[in-house]
Amino acid sequence: MKQIIKTLSWEKDKLKIIDQTLLPEKEEYIELCTIEDVFDAIKTLKIRGAPALGIAASYGILLSVKKAKIKDKEMFFNILEKSSHYISGCRPTAYNLFYGVKRLNNIALRNRHLSPEKIIKKMEQECRKIFNEDIKSSISIARNGNTIIKSGMRILTHCNAGGLATSGIGTALAPIYLAAEKHKNIEVFVDETRPILQGARLTMWELKKAGINCTLICDNMAGFLMQQKRIDMVITGADRIAKNGDTANKIGTYSIAVLARFHRIPFYIAAPLSSFDFSIQSGNEIPVEQRNKEEITHIKGIRVAPEDVNVYNPAFDITPGRLISGFITEKGIFSYRDIASLTEYRGRGNL
Amino acid sequence: MKQIIKTLSWEKDKLKIIDQTLLPEKEEYIELCTIEDVFDAIKTLKIRGAPALGIAASYGILLSVKKAKIKDKEMFFNILEKSSHYISGCRPTAYNLFYGVKRLNNIALRNRHLSPEKIIKKMEQECRKIFNEDIKSSISIARNGNTIIKSGMRILTHCNAGGLATSGIGTALAPIYLAAEKHKNIEVFVDETRPILQGARLTMWELKKAGINCTLICDNMAGFLMQQKRIDMVITGADRIAKNGDTANKIGTYSIAVLARFHRIPFYIAAPLSSFDFSIQSGNEIPVEQRNKEEITHIKGIRVAPEDVNVYNPAFDITPGRLISGFITEKGIFSYRDIASLTEYRGRGNL
Repeated sequence: MKQIIKTLSWEKDKLKIIDQTLLPEKEEYIELCTIEDVFDAIKTLKIRGAPALGIAASYGILLSVKKAKIKDKEMFFNILEKSSHYISGCRPTAYNLFYGVKRLNNIALRNRHLSPEKIIKKMEQECRKIFNEDIKSSISIARNGNTIIKSGMRILTHCNAGGLATSGIGTALAPIYLAAEKHKNIEVFVDETRPILQGARLTMWELKKAGINCTLICDNMAGFLMQQKRIDMVITGADRIAKNGDTANKIGTYSIAVLARFHRIPFYIAAPLSSFDFSIQSGNEIPVEQRNKEEITHIKGIRVAPEDVNVYNPAFDITPGRLISGFITEKGIFSYRDIASLTEYRGRGNL
Repeated sequence: MKQIIKTLSWEKDKLKIIDQTLLPEKEEYIELCTIEDVFDAIKTLKIRGAPALGIAASYGILLSVKKAKIKDKEMFFNILEKSSHYISGCRPTAYNLFYGVKRLNNIALRNRHLSPEKIIKKMEQECRKIFNEDIKSSISIARNGNTIIKSGMRILTHCNAGGLATSGIGTALAPIYLAAEKHKNIEVFVDETRPILQGARLTMWELKKAGINCTLICDNMAGFLMQQKRIDMVITGADRIAKNGDTANKIGTYSIAVLARFHRIPFYIAAPLSSFDFSIQSGNEIPVEQRNKEEITHIKGIRVAPEDVNVYNPAFDITPGRLISGFITEKGIFSYRDIASLTEYRGRGNL
């Protein structure tokens, strides 16, 4: 499977990303040189998607310690702590961001006997590792997910869980790319995903670029397609998965899961282990980000609602584990009942 | 209940309407002087909403016979037939349009012994009657619907079924207006209703104008609100209701009905008898209009998806009667099982 987009890359001590707010009109890359640049890029959605956020946050922390004029170890650990706190406050829902922060902190702590320069080198290796693991995970997710995709299937996806959301070929879209490569005849229906339109702007762009047969719909059309028996399977990504399988993902995911259950259509979540938060028992513990009302009242700067109206704008919702047919991970496909057992794969530090 | 908008009015042989494509920015009225003007206004959604379409189509036919230089009765009936056929081809789903056309044809046929001038006078009276009946219906719908609205309720609505969709105070919004007038403490959640955003642009505008406590959401957020127990009831309008209760309404209605059933929230349709099509047994016989893809790929002329993508854009969906808790009509609230019995109210001509 060839990677069609270089969503992130680490070049000459800079994190280069494709500016996703400009897609699909412009394919423009920007360089993030400081942790503040990374914070801003995440906050303004120039980079998004849970796995990509984990990578970006890690490099953000790396940038902060690299750019500082570090005098001693105390100063180093002070900066590391401040940067970790700072970047953790950027967006609250996607677990990968915290996972990345923890990995960087763990590697620093494990090497605290070394000089700051050497610890920073270890941290840079760890960033590269997180980056590469994500690429490998997406390939394994593709292979595992591909086993349940049959030729002729019409698959619904929501938001963007493709190459643009990872350093690899994606999560939800990864099995689709592989199935297409294996010449399976598949059709993908893409929810436009209001308010930010990640489906219309990003997923359609990616799928089209990859030559996948895809059709754009408004979020409110998915149920009607299911009623007409025109959807065989749903696959979405995830921002955070609790121990009981409750899953935070882009707003609208829960509604699709309910609709899929009503129509007896399998509903899958595709996510790497780095999106699993084994420290929480259920979705009740996942903070759901509320975003500003202009995202709904304005589209590309143009007002589409009366002035001064009340708006409710949660960026995510929580789908109960029991509505999820399976979790497609790099280690296989699991039931929500078996998630607790996945901790064994996460090794040292129990992240 | 005071009427806050003059959606349509017949003034000096012209049909004056508020141009709904310009709302909420501009409150601009336009005059329709020919049946072609009416056709165009309906086609381009300057006027929309099932009951309003019935009134507009009736006046469109009236305009065609009034403006023609009629030589004899044969010519009159020729024009009537052509005009009826023409305006019936404008939009296929809302039943009221065909209901209006039939009423105008029936009145002409019943008075065929009179001169064309006198038949036209009868037709003008019939138009006025349809117009006034719609005002009265909306008041009765308000009274009947108000009986099931309790203070403290949070009500979800979809699209626009308010004053802008009728000559009166609306269908789905009518009971809400009355409940608020009776000082019931209610909150209305409004689906923005992609792709045309009738909820964001029209319903929010109307509710705000009327001083109703309302909150705008994206269509994909309704399920999450229900999960949080923040919706107590759903009320929407209807474009066409079959004998078994299957209901065509704005795309997205079916999904909400399924979500409401899953969360055990009552789901009501508010509609006048003029939206009931007693000639069809089920929703399978209702044609669902497919609209152009630019409605989804562009918002207010700005492109939000890649070029040349496949789009599926049905303007309506069909909700099975069994998912509908009740039909709030001018004659009372009915179960889907009792719809066939409503024919008795529709009197002569069995429209």
